[in-house]
Amino acid sequence: MDLLIKGGTLVTAQSTFKADIAVVNGKISAIGKNLKADKNTEVIDAKGKLVLPGAIDGHTHLAMPFGGTISTDDYYAGTRSAACGGTTTVFDFILQAKGEPMQDAIKRRDALAAPDAAVDYSFHIGVTDVSTDELLDSMEEAVQAGIPSFKVFMVYDFGVDDGSFYRVLQKAAGIGALVGVHAENREVNNVLIKQFLAEGKTEAWWHYVSKKEDVEGEADVRAINLAKMAGTSLYIVHLANKQGVEAVKEARDQGYPIFAETCPQYLYFTSEVYKRERARDFVCSPPMKGKASQEALWEAIKSGDIATVATDHCPFTRAEKDWGIVTKDGKPGNFTTIPNGCAGIETMYPYMLSEANKGRITFNKVVELCATNPAKLFGLDHQKGALQVGLDADIVLYDKKKEFTITNSAMHGDTDHTIWEGVSLKGYPVATYSRGRLVYKEGEFLGKRGEGKLIKCKPIKLTTPEL
Amino acid sequence: MDLLIKGGTLVTAQSTFKADIAVVNGKISAIGKNLKADKNTEVIDAKGKLVLPGAIDGHTHLAMPFGGTISTDDYYAGTRSAACGGTTTVFDFILQAKGEPMQDAIKRRDALAAPDAAVDYSFHIGVTDVSTDELLDSMEEAVQAGIPSFKVFMVYDFGVDDGSFYRVLQKAAGIGALVGVHAENREVNNVLIKQFLAEGKTEAWWHYVSKKEDVEGEADVRAINLAKMAGTSLYIVHLANKQGVEAVKEARDQGYPIFAETCPQYLYFTSEVYKRERARDFVCSPPMKGKASQEALWEAIKSGDIATVATDHCPFTRAEKDWGIVTKDGKPGNFTTIPNGCAGIETMYPYMLSEANKGRITFNKVVELCATNPAKLFGLDHQKGALQVGLDADIVLYDKKKEFTITNSAMHGDTDHTIWEGVSLKGYPVATYSRGRLVYKEGEFLGKRGEGKLIKCKPIKLTTPEL
Amino acid sequence: MDLLIKGGTLVTAQSTFKADIAVVNGKISAIGKNLKADKNTEVIDAKGKLVLPGAIDGHTHLAMPFGGTISTDDYYAGTRSAACGGTTTVFDFILQAKGEPMQDAIKRRDALAAPDAAVDYSFHIGVTDVSTDELLDSMEEAVQAGIPSFKVFMVYDFGVDDGSFYRVLQKAAGIGALVGVHAENREVNNVLIKQFLAEGKTEAWWHYVSKKEDVEGEADVRAINLAKMAGTSLYIVHLANKQGVEAVKEARDQGYPIFAETCPQYLYFTSEVYKRERARDFVCSPPMKGKASQEALWEAIKSGDIATVATDHCPFTRAEKDWGIVTKDGKPGNFTTIPNGCAGIETMYPYMLSEANKGRITFNKVVELCATNPAKLFGLDHQKGALQVGLDADIVLYDKKKEFTITNSAMHGDTDHTIWEGVSLKGYPVATYSRGRLVYKEGEFLGKRGEGKLIKCKPIKLTTPEL
Amino acid sequence: MDLLIKGGTLVTAQSTFKADIAVVNGKISAIGKNLKADKNTEVIDAKGKLVLPGAIDGHTHLAMPFGGTISTDDYYAGTRSAACGGTTTVFDFILQAKGEPMQDAIKRRDALAAPDAAVDYSFHIGVTDVSTDELLDSMEEAVQAGIPSFKVFMVYDFGVDDGSFYRVLQKAAGIGALVGVHAENREVNNVLIKQFLAEGKTEAWWHYVSKKEDVEGEADVRAINLAKMAGTSLYIVHLANKQGVEAVKEARDQGYPIFAETCPQYLYFTSEVYKRERARDFVCSPPMKGKASQEALWEAIKSGDIATVATDHCPFTRAEKDWGIVTKDGKPGNFTTIPNGCAGIETMYPYMLSEANKGRITFNKVVELCATNPAKLFGLDHQKGALQVGLDADIVLYDKKKEFTITNSAMHGDTDHTIWEGVSLKGYPVATYSRGRLVYKEGEFLGKRGEGKLIKCKPIKLTTPEL
Repeated sequence: MDLLIKGGTLVTAQSTFKADIAVVNGKISAIGKNLKADKNTEVIDAKGKLVLPGAIDGHTHLAMPFGGTISTDDYYAGTRSAACGGTTTVFDFILQAKGEPMQDAIKRRDALAAPDAAVDYSFHIGVTDVSTDELLDSMEEAVQAGIPSFKVFMVYDFGVDDGSFYRVLQKAAGIGALVGVHAENREVNNVLIKQFLAEGKTEAWWHYVSKKEDVEGEADVRAINLAKMAGTSLYIVHLANKQGVEAVKEARDQGYPIFAETCPQYLYFTSEVYKRERARDFVCSPPMKGKASQEALWEAIKSGDIATVATDHCPFTRAEKDWGIVTKDGKPGNFTTIPNGCAGIETMYPYMLSEANKGRITFNKVVELCATNPAKLFGLDHQKGALQVGLDADIVLYDKKKEFTITNSAMHGDTDHTIWEGVSLKGYPVATYSRGRLVYKEGEFLGKRGEGKLIKCKPIKLTTPEL
Repeated sequence: MDLLIKGGTLVTAQSTFKADIAVVNGKISAIGKNLKADKNTEVIDAKGKLVLPGAIDGHTHLAMPFGGTISTDDYYAGTRSAACGGTTTVFDFILQAKGEPMQDAIKRRDALAAPDAAVDYSFHIGVTDVSTDELLDSMEEAVQAGIPSFKVFMVYDFGVDDGSFYRVLQKAAGIGALVGVHAENREVNNVLIKQFLAEGKTEAWWHYVSKKEDVEGEADVRAINLAKMAGTSLYIVHLANKQGVEAVKEARDQGYPIFAETCPQYLYFTSEVYKRERARDFVCSPPMKGKASQEALWEAIKSGDIATVATDHCPFTRAEKDWGIVTKDGKPGNFTTIPNGCAGIETMYPYMLSEANKGRITFNKVVELCATNPAKLFGLDHQKGALQVGLDADIVLYDKKKEFTITNSAMHGDTDHTIWEGVSLKGYPVATYSRGRLVYKEGEFLGKRGEGKLIKCKPIKLTTPEL
Repeated sequence: MDLLIKGGTLVTAQSTFKADIAVVNGKISAIGKNLKADKNTEVIDAKGKLVLPGAIDGHTHLAMPFGGTISTDDYYAGTRSAACGGTTTVFDFILQAKGEPMQDAIKRRDALAAPDAAVDYSFHIGVTDVSTDELLDSMEEAVQAGIPSFKVFMVYDFGVDDGSFYRVLQKAAGIGALVGVHAENREVNNVLIKQFLAEGKTEAWWHYVSKKEDVEGEADVRAINLAKMAGTSLYIVHLANKQGVEAVKEARDQGYPIFAETCPQYLYFTSEVYKRERARDFVCSPPMKGKASQEALWEAIKSGDIATVATDHCPFTRAEKDWGIVTKDGKPGNFTTIPNGCAGIETMYPYMLSEANKGRITFNKVVELCATNPAKLFGLDHQKGALQVGLDADIVLYDKKKEFTITNSAMHGDTDHTIWEGVSLKGYPVATYSRGRLVYKEGEFLGKRGEGKLIKCKPIKLTTPEL
Repeated sequence: MDLLIKGGTLVTAQSTFKADIAVVNGKISAIGKNLKADKNTEVIDAKGKLVLPGAIDGHTHLAMPFGGTISTDDYYAGTRSAACGGTTTVFDFILQAKGEPMQDAIKRRDALAAPDAAVDYSFHIGVTDVSTDELLDSMEEAVQAGIPSFKVFMVYDFGVDDGSFYRVLQKAAGIGALVGVHAENREVNNVLIKQFLAEGKTEAWWHYVSKKEDVEGEADVRAINLAKMAGTSLYIVHLANKQGVEAVKEARDQGYPIFAETCPQYLYFTSEVYKRERARDFVCSPPMKGKASQEALWEAIKSGDIATVATDHCPFTRAEKDWGIVTKDGKPGNFTTIPNGCAGIETMYPYMLSEANKGRITFNKVVELCATNPAKLFGLDHQKGALQVGLDADIVLYDKKKEFTITNSAMHGDTDHTIWEGVSLKGYPVATYSRGRLVYKEGEFLGKRGEGKLIKCKPIKLTTPEL
């Protein structure tokens, strides 16, 4: 036995109970009462602590080229930051290049990630080109290579049209793949952008208005309808609006395997942030919405209609955010010249656990949203996502009594600010284990660059709304 | 007094009662008991007959270029046929040419219609190009010219994208215009067509499958969402599927001014017709759907969620329909090479009235669907659509006891077949008056080419689901 | 020709147009342009005035024994007041005595009404006893006697249990009768009353809380479910809450013939009135509800899901209302010792028309709600409810420009106060004709006691949600 | 270590994985890879077997007086039969006597159960009398005594009226109690019974018709509305109809803590059984419903809207069922003279697991429905319901390959027939452990009368639709 965590309170998606947890070769070997250490065992006293599975962040953009720059955190900085927030697996996005077969895209991107990652990782592939049958068929090779999860963008110039989206859904149905979608109505968004800029409406507020509730809601509804037509499952990423929540609920009620992810920023902030002085720091897509949408998201978390919480972590520096005022070419900026995205990889699990600690939801629910469900959805529950004998010893110790106020200086990424600055949390992670290795302890990163491994996922077959 | 129709039973959208009806200068001058004729009055004995307002067919395609040919009935043949079926006003479609301002399109098309029309007519403009602000703004000139009704196509190569559709809706909201929509998902339709043809599935049945229930339903939902976003009303033409019916109902329940039209072919036939020997004769878009959709349409008629019945009259000859077997270029045809459309202008009112006569709905309901509601929706209830003092004397006498079996030889258009061949009706119109002139009597057309006038409509402002 | 109203603007449920209207023998004999008077004709100049059908108040309680007293207005005072507010027909309630056959109840009550009524009237029968087959079967004799409309109370000690309610619905289905229902949950109401009184909560506010939104909503849902089970239509009287509105909408969407009535007091006041000093004056059942319910009612009026507006007119004097403080026996009063009901018979049509005049709804809608729909629902559209040739000349002239502030002194009933005191209206009726007789002119009652007649209604067969 | 089950595949509500399971003092002491036995350990080879938590049957009627007799299985026969079907805990019903405080009812009934029970048990209390505050308040003493679960009957003469039901719900909200409900409309049921018997319709088929789909559905809707009004949770027992399923779904979507139980008989049989020769053997309440309801139940299981499966086990002998033909008093019988209820306690877990084995749902789902969810709902998840360290070692070994055809002779209760006779199952339990004691092995009961203990449940606080 390599490691024995004794006396803690284990939290699973289903229950909470006291037990010891033993680790051998990076795997959980036993859970029991009064487990006995041997002479080689490191024994950790977890009395008074919660013992949680490490979080799985299903949505990150590390070293992501966007808007003329690259997101601040590379694979090392991002995974280091993740570890310090209790996240032990990240799903990053590969953006397929035009004409690039899926397996080539995986190799290209993994060459970047493998030397840097400090915790385990896997990928979703952002599909941008299925103009040939070969490219479409290459999805299957990705599934066989352990990357069965794809995403299409209904917005952005690298997004796809509804025909390609539909073909991706059709294909996914047959090969054990899951399709995620960034759902916003590109056309209405573009009309509004043009109108607003023509009217001199350039501030970050108009970013929100150009992507307001129904711009996202319409696309959610459409994506669900396309998935129904193709007879396959669907995963809506970063759901942020009420109409979308209702569409997800309705489809699930009808028995369709439709799943939704939301992000902490939509649960904590509202569109009111776009009235702040540095509103541009909050520019991300979809933007935060009004209070009614936020309440709908929390309700859907409680009703089980939102399956996961992830971060959409994609930080840019303040200097880059300032391009909303003056672009890097020295021209007057506007809300469309601000790189989209915010930091969140280190604060997700602490924020969600703090909400549980304050009584809004249960700790079990947080484990379900941030660990167990992502593992099931993305095909890695054979290795990750739960405190279960045989799975990787990705474990977080959590101190319910620790008070913590988020500041960027206390974070472990490479960004120079966080939208979460000043937010007070109740409770905080005090240690993180990645496959049994201690990678974080009380404020300090203890892991190593390159120790994270690419996780190969199983094919994904979701046929009912329950996981 | 020019004309006095005595002793009939008047049917309005609201009620049924016995009264005489007097006409002066083509207008209804009085409705009353025991009205007195003067020496110049032609007196008609309507005892035992129903006296109805002439129907308004809100959806025709006369002399319509499509699929490499032109629809068989020109403005004379079409309006002649209309008159003989009790329809005294037709709304035909102008298809805007690329770069053509709306008012030019009206002039161009009216030059064709005016010399030929045998009953009154007006237009909807099929918008195909709003690529410049000038073209978009020209919608307002059309409204001022008395043509406040537009239509966009979500399918066909001359259709518009969602951005243009949205801009048309935005514009309409401010100028007193109504936007109609042909809602089918172009992208999915095209993917399916390509797949079916690649698999050798060329028969008319695959026309149906490529445009099956959800292909139309998704587009209905999307169109409604776009109208909500633009804050304006919407008119869905030829609604044929259950999902669309439900979306219309839901939007109306929420208080949105969303209206739907269906056609007799969707109320009588189902997709089973695409298994018939001459299935190609039934190829129209949207195609007839399954039984569940048909029942949903009838339910929506009863609940008031369908506002109008119109024909989508667009006949082609059997020789042209045969292009589905061998194209006019002598190549093997398939379901995409068949000109889309069927005859119906003469059978609409008789079919609907026959359904009333058989007890399925009331005669009042038929008057509402085929006359009163179109008049209200399209802005001509100041002149048409009801048996009301001051309105045009467009009047139909109907014999409930007359048995009639539809045959193409008994029709008065120029087509060589009808999908309604052999259908038995209970009751039939025996006379039609257009502005007081007798244009049809017992099987015989009595009107004249060119006597029909262009009706100028009022701006349209619909803000609630009720008319 | 006895009477000719010239130059006015006629308002029907469907349209608005200028025409003259002629009356012979108390019936509308003609509607037309430039109708000619003869030497015996009284000609009225209606230029600048609206010409409306007289209202039908579907819900009054005249000379009604309740709570140890009798409602203030007897048949003369009530119908006199009605006439002065433009209402030309009232439907009053007969409360069946225990063991009394329906036809006996009609005779008993008509003996009271016939000598007194100043405008026409008919009855609904409040069913209290169907404990024998004979009593249940006697419903059919009432239908044959021209009273095909019944009502059950789900509250009050004279109300029926669900089993009797269900049997009444079953019976109605077969004999052409309509069942109305006063829907509140008696059991929950009684539990809450007992609890509140035990806690010393005696003020009128607790009347509201003991019959709050869901107490009514549950009963609405239950009544609809019972009607569905019995396979018959249903008319929910004085609907006042949002849940009920939604249940009505849902049932109608599903195609069931479910109809709802609301009252002006629910459209204008909210439960806030129960915080007023003389809150007891507003005690009626159901009580006024919160803002959300009020908005739902207005929305349902616009969507057509509310069929009628009626008054539930049942006034008591202030001295009687004071029994909520000290009972007539000199004991301390509470909210249960206040006689339930308020005045409204004279203000209904003026209030609703004023709302139209202010732009909230159309005048056509008011005519539909207050005249045309009640006539259709209750089986008297062969005689009342529209400006239609052959119907009774029940006509109201309305001056859109007249400003009017409601005061009890300007009313024509026998009550000593009105909850509407001080409410400002835009526009007011200036003349009322009952079967061609002038019964009201500019503030003055001109009719006569006993000139009103009992109207015999046709059997009622409603099978769809549309009238 | 007392017991070590090695090499099996553990199935929890969340996951399936290979591990050993160790038992000390009747509790699960460890779950792990390669757990080591000591010299006192009995080692069981579970290779190739599924290792499941014992089922919790949340709904049994042992030794239940009903219809003039007593259900066939007493506490020994019932729990013996349960053990042989893999059920290790039963919740039986105490029917409160008139005037009896809850704690007295518990003592009275436990005196009967304690000497007989072969597996652990607990109770729900069937509330029949809350006519005094003392009786109502005694609910709290039951909660403190470990029996926090109550039930009201909306039917039967010992059922309660809606006022009492509402008061029970109000009370439950404050004391940590859960209220279950047998929901059928007593009044409509009674009207129909009377009508059918008067018409000579006496066969078992009319039992179904008198309690058909909407008779149950209306009561479900009403019960949910009452729970909403009282602001508390609700548990609908033996839900069997589609309208009820939809009402449960809708309430849960709105965030209400509404839960539903169904039974295997509703999942396997339909109302067609009431056309069989011995239809009377299938008489239970509610009766089996039509195919649409059955499909809705399965859908709701998949969507998570049905929380539990239980048996409503209440067998009677064929001789007693024959009272539907001739009563025990020798009079002609009818559908109301048949004792209501069927056997099911031994077949529940095998049937549900067989459905999983055939692929309809997952084994995890069955564990959730039959063990984990009942434990959470009824407040005993601190002791039962999961394969979790620290919980009771209630364990079932299951052989997926074993073929089994149900016959009454193979069952272990005291009944003389089963409605499940002849039904073929795929897979069957081969061993059952109750707190570590082997009580069943391969067809043979090995437990002892009186070894089952009363389980004290925690107070129950359910505030969201998720458990």
